[in-house]
Amino acid sequence: MIESITPALGKEKGTPLYTQLYRYIREAIEAGKLPSGSKLPAIRALSQHLGISKNTVEAAYGQLVAEGYVESKERGGYLIQPLDELWNPLPVQYVEMNNKCGEASEVMNSINRKDRRESSFLPYEFRYGDIAFDRFPYDIWKSCLTQSVNDAAAAAPYGILGYGDRLGHLGLREELCDYVYQSRGAVCSPDQIFIGAGTQYTVSLLLQTLGLRQAEFAMEEPGYNGVRSVLAGLDCRITSIPIEADGIHVTALEQSTAKVAYVTPSHQFPLGMVMSIEKRQRLLKWASASDALILEDDYDSEFRYGSRPVPSLKALDYDDRVIYLGTLSKSFLPGARLSYVIVPRRLVPVMTERMANYSCSVSPMIQQAVWLFIKQGHYGRHIRRMRRVYQARYRALTDAVSSTMGERVRIVGDSSGMHILLRVPGRDAMELVALAEQAGCLVYPAAKHWSNPDAEAREFVMLGFGGMQEDMLREGVRKLSMAWFAR
Amino acid sequence: MIESITPALGKEKGTPLYTQLYRYIREAIEAGKLPSGSKLPAIRALSQHLGISKNTVEAAYGQLVAEGYVESKERGGYLIQPLDELWNPLPVQYVEMNNKCGEASEVMNSINRKDRRESSFLPYEFRYGDIAFDRFPYDIWKSCLTQSVNDAAAAAPYGILGYGDRLGHLGLREELCDYVYQSRGAVCSPDQIFIGAGTQYTVSLLLQTLGLRQAEFAMEEPGYNGVRSVLAGLDCRITSIPIEADGIHVTALEQSTAKVAYVTPSHQFPLGMVMSIEKRQRLLKWASASDALILEDDYDSEFRYGSRPVPSLKALDYDDRVIYLGTLSKSFLPGARLSYVIVPRRLVPVMTERMANYSCSVSPMIQQAVWLFIKQGHYGRHIRRMRRVYQARYRALTDAVSSTMGERVRIVGDSSGMHILLRVPGRDAMELVALAEQAGCLVYPAAKHWSNPDAEAREFVMLGFGGMQEDMLREGVRKLSMAWFAR
Ligand SMILES: Cc1ncc(COP(=O)(O)O)c(C=O)c1O
Ligand SMILES: Cc1ncc(COP(=O)(O)O)c(C=O)c1O
Repeated sequence: MIESITPALGKEKGTPLYTQLYRYIREAIEAGKLPSGSKLPAIRALSQHLGISKNTVEAAYGQLVAEGYVESKERGGYLIQPLDELWNPLPVQYVEMNNKCGEASEVMNSINRKDRRESSFLPYEFRYGDIAFDRFPYDIWKSCLTQSVNDAAAAAPYGILGYGDRLGHLGLREELCDYVYQSRGAVCSPDQIFIGAGTQYTVSLLLQTLGLRQAEFAMEEPGYNGVRSVLAGLDCRITSIPIEADGIHVTALEQSTAKVAYVTPSHQFPLGMVMSIEKRQRLLKWASASDALILEDDYDSEFRYGSRPVPSLKALDYDDRVIYLGTLSKSFLPGARLSYVIVPRRLVPVMTERMANYSCSVSPMIQQAVWLFIKQGHYGRHIRRMRRVYQARYRALTDAVSSTMGERVRIVGDSSGMHILLRVPGRDAMELVALAEQAGCLVYPAAKHWSNPDAEAREFVMLGFGGMQEDMLREGVRKLSMAWFAR
Repeated sequence: MIESITPALGKEKGTPLYTQLYRYIREAIEAGKLPSGSKLPAIRALSQHLGISKNTVEAAYGQLVAEGYVESKERGGYLIQPLDELWNPLPVQYVEMNNKCGEASEVMNSINRKDRRESSFLPYEFRYGDIAFDRFPYDIWKSCLTQSVNDAAAAAPYGILGYGDRLGHLGLREELCDYVYQSRGAVCSPDQIFIGAGTQYTVSLLLQTLGLRQAEFAMEEPGYNGVRSVLAGLDCRITSIPIEADGIHVTALEQSTAKVAYVTPSHQFPLGMVMSIEKRQRLLKWASASDALILEDDYDSEFRYGSRPVPSLKALDYDDRVIYLGTLSKSFLPGARLSYVIVPRRLVPVMTERMANYSCSVSPMIQQAVWLFIKQGHYGRHIRRMRRVYQARYRALTDAVSSTMGERVRIVGDSSGMHILLRVPGRDAMELVALAEQAGCLVYPAAKHWSNPDAEAREFVMLGFGGMQEDMLREGVRKLSMAWFAR
């Protein structure tokens, strides 16, 4: 087997070695040269065989695991998975989500000041935040939840009905460590993690426990309004740093006096690009040189449909500067309200000491159930399945947009995540959103993610596609196209 | 029936009319004059009969409901309950709660710097925060949770698997309105409520949404460290106001420049007294006169074992100055991590507008399950049952302390809640806590709830009793007594 993995590494300049290795193995699997059911060579053996570091092999394997080509087994083996891995979808039920106070009503309120309680269900809701509820394994999750309450009744160790561990369920933190290592290449231990009720709260708690409120923050422009609101609500000083084609404008950041930079390197929110490896390295250098911290929000990195793997910044964080923000809202369920933070090793003592004054914000019952879900292997399987589901939805959406709207719009995004932006030159998003609503479609103006929306910002419309089946996406795009351009 | 309710109201000067009426009816029920199964007169009828306002009658009825003497039925009737209402306790299982990072390990860490993971289970854990897990209706709760996921799968209206309503589950907010009205006399509507993951987060979110971070805060001294930590973590200015025998030193508050006062009027934390009605009124006047706000933390008001009913400040809040903090951590389960805030009516617009930028922090699955639990009547029944359970535990604990420790300690508390303080003159609580631990007992030094602990503060030891059965309480007190005084 090991002989069949002999790529000409170093051929592609500018592409990291691990990416080249990952691609080589992936193609070999896809071509059937590495048959499913067999094991990949041990990391040490392959690193010696190829004369590269173990880290490189590990990173390549991690990416293959993250994308579902390979499953990592206890005791270290990496098993190649069947390509058309069969699974039994649940009866496809269109789950009618009428999330009254989600983005939906917010937008609608701002447009026509409707009473919140009157905001009605639209047939085509491109709601950002929805996931593929129609493919969610309800029965498994229900049994995890029931199991969790049973565990509580039967003298479980961590007080599932009580406040629970202040940092979060220890078993769950252990699983999360494994997970970020396997899928994101980041090495951490459970004492570096705390669990909290959503990214907004974990960020707010971070500021409290690390005493960061007084620091100067850099935010991407445009950047995630959810985090900007938290910083603004706590009277933090915020500097906006523009976004370039390959991510945050690091030179502008270097010229600022910011001490904490919030970034979305795997999938810039909302524009969608991946931060280039050069920028990642410059960003890390900036942090070291300025004695600064980086808040890496890795919210939907699980879902990439193109070929390029994206390492996390945390995986490259040799100088211990990156605070990693993870969430289960995309990869599992927004309704779990469970996210987590990995703090740099040197900040563990102060974080732990201060956290002794805060109780955990996520129900230990939910944490126990999620822990069971992960530990029993459902989480990994679920992500692999969902990647294919979202990939199909992404393609259906972008194909439909291209074929019905053609040159009149530009699709902004990078084959990943659960949303795209449409840029409609010369049109105002507020008007487009209102026209869409009349045609039964919920879409969003993206401008709220700019701290200072300029004319360009107002040309962007945001569409979430995670919660819509392909037919609905195609039909919805047809409606949008008629509403926007058929006059 | 109405004729049998003819108290000589106004006899007791200084006691509010509604208290007198409440007492009169309660005594009539206890004496069997008002038989169980019959209904109380309609509010309007009784108010006319006695020539008092409807509000007074309502407040008296509310108190009777809160204490389980009367159950309020749909369509307005108030049904008198059997005094020895039978109920089927679950098989008594001692739930061994080994909450590694709760107060327990915090204290133990601070005492002997043990590794957190080694902190071991002690046989007698007077843990503050534990409730009577041994009496919790697991099966009912499990079925509510399962029902909640089923509802989600079957196209439920509020997106139980999604982010959910930003303010919290609408049905649950409606139930909470009813509840605070029935049990606390506070009148509010669901749009005044938001739900969050524990008191610490709801307070933090309050500061963000109402822009209060810059205000000067008054905290009780001693006062709840959980909230003080949040204020300190957000760099708020805090003034400490001493506690007198009947609650916060209002004169000192009046002389301060504070604009927001955090108080625990129903059961001062940690000292346990009830704020007198005179102080309540002065406090409300202070708020009006200084254009200030009051944060009323009503964390365990459900559990009073003496006779005196305690109205909430919010119930007297005619000038719309009180922000009410409620939690389900004592009355239901800490593990639900569910608390709520009622904001004054005039702050609803700004709160609602700012909340549009925050997602809800409590899992909608939990919220739906709690909603079912309340709506189906389990919550009311549970509280009435638990009141008797805790009353028995309170008595067992205080009787045991009196008989074994006698004059050597003073019990500080007021027949309510789930904790007491013991003051041990001339001894240092840290030493007492360490001796207790050697004897297998977990108790706490109370000094951390003082912002400036003086010598007196260091004489207080805190004991939680909610999670311990009577035998254990008695046995634990015996151990404590031997450890502390038997030399
Ligand atoms: C950039 C970004 N970060 C994080 C999140 C996840 O937030 P949460 O963990 O509160 O669900 C989202 C979801 O909308 C997002 O867009
Ligand atoms: C004074 C006080 N307020 C509030 C709470 C409840 O906090 P939470 O809602 O986070 O459980 C407690 C619990 O310990 C408390 O002692």
